[in-house]
Amino acid sequence: MYEGAVQDLIDELGRLPGIGPKSAQRIAFHILSADSADVDRLAGVLRRVKAEVKFCRICGNVSEGDECRICRDPRRDASIICVVEEPKDVIAVERTREYRGRYHVLGGAISPIDGIGPDDLRVRELLMRLSDGAVTELILATDPNLEGEATATYLARLIKPMGVIVSRLASGLPVGGDLEYADEVTLGRAFSGRRTVD
Amino acid sequence: MYEGAVQDLIDELGRLPGIGPKSAQRIAFHILSADSADVDRLAGVLRRVKAEVKFCRICGNVSEGDECRICRDPRRDASIICVVEEPKDVIAVERTREYRGRYHVLGGAISPIDGIGPDDLRVRELLMRLSDGAVTELILATDPNLEGEATATYLARLIKPMGVIVSRLASGLPVGGDLEYADEVTLGRAFSGRRTVD
Repeated sequence: MYEGAVQDLIDELGRLPGIGPKSAQRIAFHILSADSADVDRLAGVLRRVKAEVKFCRICGNVSEGDECRICRDPRRDASIICVVEEPKDVIAVERTREYRGRYHVLGGAISPIDGIGPDDLRVRELLMRLSDGAVTELILATDPNLEGEATATYLARLIKPMGVIVSRLASGLPVGGDLEYADEVTLGRAFSGRRTVD
Repeated sequence: MYEGAVQDLIDELGRLPGIGPKSAQRIAFHILSADSADVDRLAGVLRRVKAEVKFCRICGNVSEGDECRICRDPRRDASIICVVEEPKDVIAVERTREYRGRYHVLGGAISPIDGIGPDDLRVRELLMRLSDGAVTELILATDPNLEGEATATYLARLIKPMGVIVSRLASGLPVGGDLEYADEVTLGRAFSGRRTVD
């Protein structure tokens, strides 16, 4: 409908998740009337995030360097690993201030419908971290939905024979929900009330 | 919460209209896992839209060149001008396929609360377009809300003494609404039922 670059921008914005045609148009006109410096900063950080952001070689969380801030921090308890699906789940758990161990980011959850199996997740990297016996407890903090539960069950069966205590976040999280949307209190209680998997 | 560029990106995205913190985070992680080529294209078009897009020197609509597609089109009736607030309103009217005249984009509406008066809009440019007597009808298609009505009333009083037929879009548009969200049929009927301002 629009000429050249305006329409290109609306099209590109419309490809982002959660941005419909009306939102894309509104953002495009906001950008048209915004300061050039602000737009340059947004365009710059878009390129920078692709160039600079890596994934931590230990836990798989997003990181500026080879190892993330949490894996580099000697004050974090290296004997406990909390397994989550996505980097944003690390942030959600950090917000509770209940947890002082390390993390392992799987990069998703087992989902046969989407064709995602254990080999598509960072399961092998998790097993390698457990191989030297330094880790004594594994907290499974995958989402409390179908895929997250399946992933937790799979990991518990795989890892319990290795002699590691495997626990799952306590019920208290709303079932069918998404871990990142839980409020701090609920998520904190789920942490303190975690139970071992038999 | 995140390290370096990821957090910068979430912050920049959160400044866009209609993007809250959760949406910004979701879009940032989408970009992290997207193709570099796609992200480059988005970053490129953001800069290109600021560099290339101008406003038509005749009607004030967005345009790639000095004059927009509609002002350059000899098939469009130059004796009728439809006055709208924003470029997106031009698109809304074009979608009805009811109108074959030209446009004039004011760049907003009179709003004393926001400190926007006639001098902040492209009113002088409109009067200049009417000065040679070639335009015989002016359709006031400002939004059917307080500011839009005030702007229409102001323009009607100013321009009717010049001997131009001044009309306002027919009622039928939902009052208190926004012109760009009207459906094609409603907006088309509003066009065909427009009435002269006494």
